[in-house]
Amino acid sequence: MPYDFEVNPLSNLPALPMIECVANFSEGRDASTVRAIKDAIASSKGVLVLRSEMDADHNRSVVTFAGPPDAVAEGALRGIAVAVERIDLRTHRGVHPRMGAADVVPFVPLEGATLQDCVVIARQTGEEVWRRLGVPVYFYEAAAMTPERRMLEVSRRGGFERPHHAPDLGGPALHPSAGACIIGARKLLIAFNINLDTDDVSVAREIALKIRTSSGGMPFLKALGLPLAARGLAQVSMNLTDFEQTPLHVVFDAVRREAAARGVGIVGSEIIGLVPKKALEDAAAHYLQCENFDTGLVLENRLARARSAVDEAERALE
Amino acid sequence: MPYDFEVNPLSNLPALPMIECVANFSEGRDASTVRAIKDAIASSKGVLVLRSEMDADHNRSVVTFAGPPDAVAEGALRGIAVAVERIDLRTHRGVHPRMGAADVVPFVPLEGATLQDCVVIARQTGEEVWRRLGVPVYFYEAAAMTPERRMLEVSRRGGFERPHHAPDLGGPALHPSAGACIIGARKLLIAFNINLDTDDVSVAREIALKIRTSSGGMPFLKALGLPLAARGLAQVSMNLTDFEQTPLHVVFDAVRREAAARGVGIVGSEIIGLVPKKALEDAAAHYLQCENFDTGLVLENRLARARSAVDEAERALE
Repeated sequence: MPYDFEVNPLSNLPALPMIECVANFSEGRDASTVRAIKDAIASSKGVLVLRSEMDADHNRSVVTFAGPPDAVAEGALRGIAVAVERIDLRTHRGVHPRMGAADVVPFVPLEGATLQDCVVIARQTGEEVWRRLGVPVYFYEAAAMTPERRMLEVSRRGGFERPHHAPDLGGPALHPSAGACIIGARKLLIAFNINLDTDDVSVAREIALKIRTSSGGMPFLKALGLPLAARGLAQVSMNLTDFEQTPLHVVFDAVRREAAARGVGIVGSEIIGLVPKKALEDAAAHYLQCENFDTGLVLENRLARARSAVDEAERALE
Repeated sequence: MPYDFEVNPLSNLPALPMIECVANFSEGRDASTVRAIKDAIASSKGVLVLRSEMDADHNRSVVTFAGPPDAVAEGALRGIAVAVERIDLRTHRGVHPRMGAADVVPFVPLEGATLQDCVVIARQTGEEVWRRLGVPVYFYEAAAMTPERRMLEVSRRGGFERPHHAPDLGGPALHPSAGACIIGARKLLIAFNINLDTDDVSVAREIALKIRTSSGGMPFLKALGLPLAARGLAQVSMNLTDFEQTPLHVVFDAVRREAAARGVGIVGSEIIGLVPKKALEDAAAHYLQCENFDTGLVLENRLARARSAVDEAERALE
């Protein structure tokens, strides 16, 4: 068939906006508290809980959830409220730095949403956290009030016990038991490790130094060289903070090239957490040298958009 | 975070079954007829029309749609009914072989559905087409009644004017104006072309001969060497009929290897129609050498499953 009879009017429709929240709480030992937080988040209609993890050494848990922006904001607020009620930082011990019961709450744009949408949600959520819960708020990354506060590390300096900076909203004293909440907006992060065919960790460290942003390499890339003692391998461990600017496959090819230049091969790689489909689509299109690739060529993407459009049309009829 | 606090119970839930139908009709010139067929298909609640194409030389159109199995079956029946009413094969001319007004109707399993589900839907639809519309039916591929009838070409032999074989259901005479309908069940097909950095079509033909099933190459692969006159290139044009058995990236690497052995490079490739996301995920995981890849690591897949589970729970409450 040489041409589309009718260019599908659905294929250019934006998807309904969806955002993600990766909320970090200062409780990693009492499962009943983590469950209560998670249940509170999930009680917001439209929220989908994707993952929940807890770590006893860090005494910290992470709940990852997604949905339409308003539903995610409401879920975050409900989870923060339970954390503020149940977690007392005066008796909290753990190896991870922390500033609050509900410690770090970033909002992340998914399909159909922008980083700016997440800034708006972060600021609104911050207002509610101070107004309704009496917990002061720091804003970070894209939601920061000033450029100096963009980096999480700045707001967090000194921790709950000796904060270096006053909060952006409320305070200046922290909440006596729940501290402060650091709320932000950032792009989706990909955590990705590549295992090298050598037990010499200095090779992994050299490669990390060569490719990462902080030492003059590729933008949006954090990298460390680590030993993988159990397997007798060295690993380049990475966080890619903007995979649309620095694609995953570009990072992979750079590591492969740098390793080869040192006479070392790649054993394999691993994805930590979740990876957005666009990063994989882009990698596939790159390696398959696809000239006409567009995300609308993927059957399931076209289906999802058609379904959103039908849902929207039905809502409009109600 | 070293471990999942709670392995997400949603991540192993099967998706709600979805199937696709790629319906071919013997009308490629009168847009009002094609639109009437398409509207009839779309009137089945739950059906999503993904693509519709028409071709004047072939005098043929294709409507691709998807949804839950019963909705797709009902949509197919409604589309076939309009085609039977409006298309008269006694006056139909075109270069493409054809046997009926609603000529070829394959059902294809998508996520959560099996080929066997599509065989059941194909047979049920065939019964309705004969019982309600008086149009005899041939069954092909996985829905064939006998092994000799698996290939579409067998049922189609002789065309509307001089059919070689009696229909599997109804007849034996064809419907006077609408002929017969050839209904089948098959796996998703990927149409994929690779352009070679040479204008010598004999290289493309040699490669096609080397890799395709019919001359002893890889299973589930049809391939032809063609000239791409406009670009001064030769092309290996392929249909991959089971990308889970013979992955897309395996085919790509084989063509690249065979081309390199002949001193020829690859200029690029192109996807024709739609490609299932699994083929791209598998290709990305292969080229990125991902050790722990699983489709549940893709953010959007986890979201979709969580959403299906919530939908299902809500339906159960109604």
